[in-house]
Amino acid sequence: MLKLYFTPGTCSLASHIALEESGAAYEAQSIDFGKQQQRAPEFLRVNPKGRVPALVTDRGIVTETPAILAYIGQSFPDTPVGVPKDPFEFARIQAFNGYLSSTVHVAHAHRRRGSRWADDPAAIEAMTLKVPSNMSECFDLIENSLFSGPWVMGEAYSIADPYLFTLTGWLEGDGVDPQRFPEVYAHSRRMAERPAVKKVLSIAAG
Amino acid sequence: MLKLYFTPGTCSLASHIALEESGAAYEAQSIDFGKQQQRAPEFLRVNPKGRVPALVTDRGIVTETPAILAYIGQSFPDTPVGVPKDPFEFARIQAFNGYLSSTVHVAHAHRRRGSRWADDPAAIEAMTLKVPSNMSECFDLIENSLFSGPWVMGEAYSIADPYLFTLTGWLEGDGVDPQRFPEVYAHSRRMAERPAVKKVLSIAAG
Repeated sequence: MLKLYFTPGTCSLASHIALEESGAAYEAQSIDFGKQQQRAPEFLRVNPKGRVPALVTDRGIVTETPAILAYIGQSFPDTPVGVPKDPFEFARIQAFNGYLSSTVHVAHAHRRRGSRWADDPAAIEAMTLKVPSNMSECFDLIENSLFSGPWVMGEAYSIADPYLFTLTGWLEGDGVDPQRFPEVYAHSRRMAERPAVKKVLSIAAG
Repeated sequence: MLKLYFTPGTCSLASHIALEESGAAYEAQSIDFGKQQQRAPEFLRVNPKGRVPALVTDRGIVTETPAILAYIGQSFPDTPVGVPKDPFEFARIQAFNGYLSSTVHVAHAHRRRGSRWADDPAAIEAMTLKVPSNMSECFDLIENSLFSGPWVMGEAYSIADPYLFTLTGWLEGDGVDPQRFPEVYAHSRRMAERPAVKKVLSIAAG
């Protein structure tokens, strides 16, 4: 059985929702950052990066959100999160998810994880100041150029949807009003009505 | 015919090598950052993110290195960069490439692109100070936990190899001696002997 290591409030929510949508049998194990469980030896044996999400399969571990989402999508093709076999259609999804992971998530991380990239407290503070404008710029691009609607890729729901929903959920905490992006905001409301999303949010809330 | 927009010295090298290894018919168009060509209206119509690489296909544009590499790998399956159909084997590759794009490339970018994440010149300077230790930490993890050898994934060459080669090439400029990572360093030497790599490096050098 699949096992997902997750932490509420992190990007692991995307993989968690995708698993639930896939109908796969899985268990979800919470990792408490407050207790530094991500740095505990037993978790580092699972994922030496000390990060969530990490998905344990009977073949080994998969990490990195876009890779986990694609794994779920390829493993459960005839479900709402199944991925297209056509290389271009798949690449469109992966390009979107790659942007979320390498640019949007990184922009967000400079609010509370600035110590990853500088030691000087003043520098870390300076990074937090730029988070709202950076996140706004990212979501302007998503709203105006990348998002098709009603789902990210258009008529078909995909593994891009739980991931966008997850990062949209960070906007308010990052000092950005999500309603500035009407398409993305409506998407977030649409996502919140899905039974899989409701179920996962209730688990994540403990 | 495929068309790759690239800039020497950037991560577009990985996609360029993969295209060459695939045997695909393609043309390569250089974008000159010195002339701000990545911000020119005609390029923003290709890639509204104003970044390279961007791969033009007859179906549309693909961006983000891990997505482009997977697209090449799925489109040209019976070549050195063809990707496995098995979801877990594919996920291993995507997880590695995802780590390079969302963590290693980002660590490197704080040396010369710090203005993305802060406006204060002192903060940008503080970021550059942490680049050597962050890059070292990333490559320690690759050397000790992620790299199989002789190629990234083991006996089989894959789309992970041009990408690791590209980022390894940044170490010296980032103030890190690549020879501190013997497996990764040997990989880089092995890569440099491949005809496709030699050819692409000669194009990229103009």
